[in-house]
Amino acid sequence: MSRKLYAFLAIPLAISSLSAIAKEGMFTPEQLPEISDDLKATGLALSPESLSDLTGFPMGAIVSLGGCSASFVSDTGLAVTNHHCARGSVQYNSTAENNYLKDGFLATSPDKELPAAPGTRMWVTVGFSDVTDKVTGDLGDDVTGRDRYDAIVKKQKAIIAECEAEDGYRCSVPAFYDGLEYKLIKQLEIRDVRIAYAPADAIGKYGGDIDNWMWPRHTGDFSFYRAYVGPDGKPADYSEDNVPYQPEHVLTVSAAGLEAGDFVMAAGYPGSTNRYARLVTVDYMFNWLYPTYVDLVTDWIDAIETAAPEGSDARIIYEARLAGLNNFLKNTKGQLAGAKRVGLLDRRASRETALNAWLKEEGDPNGYQSAIAQLDEVKSQSAAMSKQNFWYNNLTRSQLLSAAQTLYRNAIEKQRPDAEREPGYQERDNKRLEEQMQRLDRRFDAAVDKAVWKRFITLYMAQPESAHINAFDNALGLDDAVNAGSLDSVLTGMYSKTALDQADMRLKWLNADKAAFEDSDDPFIKLAVALYDTEMAIEDKSKALEGKEAVLQPKYMRAIIDWQKAQGSLAYPDANSTLRVTYGTVLGGSPKDGLIYEPFTRLEGIVEKDTGDTPFDSPKKQLQLIEDKKYGPYALPDIGSVPVNFLSDLDSTGGNSGSATLNANAELVGLLFDGTFESVNSDWDFDPKTTRTIHVDTRYMLWVMQYVDGATNLIEEMKIAK
Amino acid sequence: MSRKLYAFLAIPLAISSLSAIAKEGMFTPEQLPEISDDLKATGLALSPESLSDLTGFPMGAIVSLGGCSASFVSDTGLAVTNHHCARGSVQYNSTAENNYLKDGFLATSPDKELPAAPGTRMWVTVGFSDVTDKVTGDLGDDVTGRDRYDAIVKKQKAIIAECEAEDGYRCSVPAFYDGLEYKLIKQLEIRDVRIAYAPADAIGKYGGDIDNWMWPRHTGDFSFYRAYVGPDGKPADYSEDNVPYQPEHVLTVSAAGLEAGDFVMAAGYPGSTNRYARLVTVDYMFNWLYPTYVDLVTDWIDAIETAAPEGSDARIIYEARLAGLNNFLKNTKGQLAGAKRVGLLDRRASRETALNAWLKEEGDPNGYQSAIAQLDEVKSQSAAMSKQNFWYNNLTRSQLLSAAQTLYRNAIEKQRPDAEREPGYQERDNKRLEEQMQRLDRRFDAAVDKAVWKRFITLYMAQPESAHINAFDNALGLDDAVNAGSLDSVLTGMYSKTALDQADMRLKWLNADKAAFEDSDDPFIKLAVALYDTEMAIEDKSKALEGKEAVLQPKYMRAIIDWQKAQGSLAYPDANSTLRVTYGTVLGGSPKDGLIYEPFTRLEGIVEKDTGDTPFDSPKKQLQLIEDKKYGPYALPDIGSVPVNFLSDLDSTGGNSGSATLNANAELVGLLFDGTFESVNSDWDFDPKTTRTIHVDTRYMLWVMQYVDGATNLIEEMKIAK
Repeated sequence: MSRKLYAFLAIPLAISSLSAIAKEGMFTPEQLPEISDDLKATGLALSPESLSDLTGFPMGAIVSLGGCSASFVSDTGLAVTNHHCARGSVQYNSTAENNYLKDGFLATSPDKELPAAPGTRMWVTVGFSDVTDKVTGDLGDDVTGRDRYDAIVKKQKAIIAECEAEDGYRCSVPAFYDGLEYKLIKQLEIRDVRIAYAPADAIGKYGGDIDNWMWPRHTGDFSFYRAYVGPDGKPADYSEDNVPYQPEHVLTVSAAGLEAGDFVMAAGYPGSTNRYARLVTVDYMFNWLYPTYVDLVTDWIDAIETAAPEGSDARIIYEARLAGLNNFLKNTKGQLAGAKRVGLLDRRASRETALNAWLKEEGDPNGYQSAIAQLDEVKSQSAAMSKQNFWYNNLTRSQLLSAAQTLYRNAIEKQRPDAEREPGYQERDNKRLEEQMQRLDRRFDAAVDKAVWKRFITLYMAQPESAHINAFDNALGLDDAVNAGSLDSVLTGMYSKTALDQADMRLKWLNADKAAFEDSDDPFIKLAVALYDTEMAIEDKSKALEGKEAVLQPKYMRAIIDWQKAQGSLAYPDANSTLRVTYGTVLGGSPKDGLIYEPFTRLEGIVEKDTGDTPFDSPKKQLQLIEDKKYGPYALPDIGSVPVNFLSDLDSTGGNSGSATLNANAELVGLLFDGTFESVNSDWDFDPKTTRTIHVDTRYMLWVMQYVDGATNLIEEMKIAK
Repeated sequence: MSRKLYAFLAIPLAISSLSAIAKEGMFTPEQLPEISDDLKATGLALSPESLSDLTGFPMGAIVSLGGCSASFVSDTGLAVTNHHCARGSVQYNSTAENNYLKDGFLATSPDKELPAAPGTRMWVTVGFSDVTDKVTGDLGDDVTGRDRYDAIVKKQKAIIAECEAEDGYRCSVPAFYDGLEYKLIKQLEIRDVRIAYAPADAIGKYGGDIDNWMWPRHTGDFSFYRAYVGPDGKPADYSEDNVPYQPEHVLTVSAAGLEAGDFVMAAGYPGSTNRYARLVTVDYMFNWLYPTYVDLVTDWIDAIETAAPEGSDARIIYEARLAGLNNFLKNTKGQLAGAKRVGLLDRRASRETALNAWLKEEGDPNGYQSAIAQLDEVKSQSAAMSKQNFWYNNLTRSQLLSAAQTLYRNAIEKQRPDAEREPGYQERDNKRLEEQMQRLDRRFDAAVDKAVWKRFITLYMAQPESAHINAFDNALGLDDAVNAGSLDSVLTGMYSKTALDQADMRLKWLNADKAAFEDSDDPFIKLAVALYDTEMAIEDKSKALEGKEAVLQPKYMRAIIDWQKAQGSLAYPDANSTLRVTYGTVLGGSPKDGLIYEPFTRLEGIVEKDTGDTPFDSPKKQLQLIEDKKYGPYALPDIGSVPVNFLSDLDSTGGNSGSATLNANAELVGLLFDGTFESVNSDWDFDPKTTRTIHVDTRYMLWVMQYVDGATNLIEEMKIAK
């Protein structure tokens, strides 16, 4: 579990402000025909069957950006996503003279479009098939622990390798229902992505961190990318010779929009939920891990802010990290508050009691009860291990140590045949590793990294002996006599002697062999080498636990599915970054007694919030247009203005950012970009009363494009429904 | 102006959390027949004329507590007010063993009632008459400046002295419309006030500072006092022989309550508004004084919190002061935000332009335009003087210096015949001064007072030469060479040598003569003596400016009244702590785009907010009653629960706390206790869209009394309308 938690922390930090949700169900497209009746009753005009075809209309228009979603809106590769999903690319192209974050960016013709930030990809799903039998068909329940873990990974790698034999595609074999099913997903990987249009931060990030997770909201969270391919139509690296990609399916953009109560659905790539987590895990998360993270991240933010004061160059470098940490902190506090509000632990306990009772009543022919009891035991061991290694694991957050560990691992993995390497270190990962090593420079300042690391080490040193790792203590010479001063001089020495802060050195190490690492005098390389055996031992334990879970969890999920079915409802798999559909209606809410959220916000609300200071510093031009009530064709009569953002009861989470919000005819009516603060706990437990998802309305998007930014070239390129 | 500003700061600190407003108009009862049509149209069932009789029903039941309002609800002197108005008395009677703040207090029979905190008074209005002619009738416009100021004060003192010749009464001659009118108000002064019932803080202060000024709200802000008089029926000091006062008029308490849209009115004693302030003053307040106070008070709070850390005895002593400062800070920030939102300065400028235009159009036969221009000049001088002396004035906030100054001033005033003394230092003030000198102990800690003073002195020293007062600098030996260390040793010496931190010494000094002060070695007495001439010079300048204003302001107000009348509306005087009536309807609101306030909150909202930690720590018994839906006869069907608090569009401010909220038949339906955050700016400018007043519903009050606290003896004593 410990490594999984690492990944878990990484998601909210990297992905940003989307989470939350509500009309329960993140359905896979293939499930939709099974709930055809409810879809029609809720208002869907298309046939539910048409939604289940991943390569047909409209799903073929929905793409992944990795951590965000997007959708094609023109025959020449124009794709719309959230501003906060494309902002890194705007930042990458900004300079003091051309500050596109501040002024916005508009390419008035395609040749003026700018390359997205390095590593930006667009994945278009072209194939989807069940491979469960191939992955686990020949694995009996007796194959468990590390053996089962390795067997599954080996099968996944083989299937991926076969699928990726065709150039230009990226394949994956994610588990659904915690390993009850495995699917092979084949995606065209577009590597030349360019930024076509992004409004200024003062529109696209209006409200900033203050409004993050909040309603009422007035954020113009939209931007446009364009996908390019080689002249042969195949994915290619950036080149002037490349041509716009021609998607098979394209969404029509609605200028007519919605009213309160209208049907909406969103299609996108939600990252991760824990709706089926066992009580033992929920208890650990909410009574230990989340509260501990709140303290740790508060400290972490303080360390960065102290080492990188307001106005310093270092602060600019760490802005994105600070935003991510603040977002994570706000989210985690919301999770804790939400859990308390809904009584998460009691509810989970009741659910487990009810499931057990049902199994008992049914006679439990498949022995699920015994499997579930064993699962709880393994989960309990995972939690204990995570807690045990928590403080040590945080030590490896030093950016330089983390890079050194990745480089050394890479050297070791490279000694093996490709098919036997750890996923993440295969030939197919080389480019990503290179980009990762290059990108570090733009996010790194030695003084800040050192200050953060020192803070983590100090926290680690304050833990009891049992939380200590000898290899680390010995390598840094940490003993009872180490005080703040001597620790500082140890770290200062390491940062002054290392060469890993130089991109060319890191790239060189990518091609070095194991012996070179072991001979190196670089203090971070030496530390990585010294920690390797410890890391492997932890990883082995963790994989062995995962292997045990891999036998037991599918049985638990089967029990859940059967139980739900017996109650007439359709279970859906937890989010796993694959394409999902959620549907419901445009709906305000009552987050708490005495308070009502209206379903739409208005242009005038921008003026109300405006203080002239970031993040409430709307462009003067926009304020004037609003004062002049120049609504054009985009007003919603019910609210007497142009709608800016709207609420729905859809079920979404991090990764859904940028998801196409569609009306009953699958026209684009908005972009999903956030959930309300009261909704964040729905990652764990769904509260239909408070869970609401926030969308930017296409009427506001078109209004800004037409009147504020003059992006008429793009409006003309899209098909607009009036 | 500088002294007035002092008083202005004192009000929000002392009075606590009430402010806010809305259906514009804090009318004097005598004005009500003039707006009879609108009162009836809004829903009043009684005759508007009946409301204008201050000694009739229902106004005869409305009393002042000084800074708060209350009303009689039984024939034997039971009066209901806000919990936050009576909390000081609960605190006064609390001990570690009998913690009434935590547990609540209920006297199950009158003999168990406890004396209110020293200085608690209840004032029952018995007479009200116009004395404008007596005060200013023989003062021509040529009598101005200090002469006019002194002449007015002399007349006021003479009228008061005549009125107070009858024992047991307190009289005042407040100005209305900035001196256009003067009224003599005669009040029975009840000196034996006892606490009969107060719910626990966990009900009466539920939500605490976090919810202060906020909606949705769930505060049980009610408590009961009982008034006692001597066996002869006349006011008397506390004695076991005293008997309950029998008020002439008593309110019926409604258990039937209100619905959204129903007529409501509130009668109480609002402290101070500035609706007619000139632009030059508004500009000074919002562009200099308020922002400066925000910084100063933030610093002040920090100084107290640092010197009196959480958990220390000193912190307990300064809790009330900290609460007051935090309240003031939140209010001031709300004022600033509100001014920005409504465009206060622009609106005031437009009003002045419109008034000028109207005067010009009418030919301005009374020469108002010239008077207004002169008034602006005087106001501008007042602002400059206030700014000039601001940092010096804050120095005298040291509690010991302030006491020393009061004592020395008293000795000087006592040399004069009573009628010639400064108001506040006459025979009639002796008792109040004594109580003030005694009370200091309960609010004072030398280390905290020193730390705060040091902070103020440091701020003062950082000001340019022009803001410095030689007498102060010389007395403390402040010159360029003084640093933090040497200042600290000067102050440490003063606090170690003074005897003014002892109550008996302060009381002794109350009877000492001027020479004794001048011979004293007590460092604070010495400082008070050294500063006296400076203080008098500032006071003289200030009074001279007020005297000039006293000629000009009545002309400005006359112009306003005439102008409003020409537009068909009735001007009302700014609040001045006299009895006022405001009316309107039960009404939710939309404080900002996308957000709606419901008019009522419900019992269930208490459970929603409850965290188990202060200030969201409802008594378990209450939570259980709510879970059991034991609503009794108090539910409002529209909301499916017992209403806790409700909103109205009434016009209120600080001092209105505890005001009786009455229905169309003048039955008590609630107690006014707060305004919403968006309303605080209405002290200066009325924004009907956002201004809302918050009331506790009598149905919640009766529900708590009946089911939670078992205060059935009091319910039986009151007349309840079902």
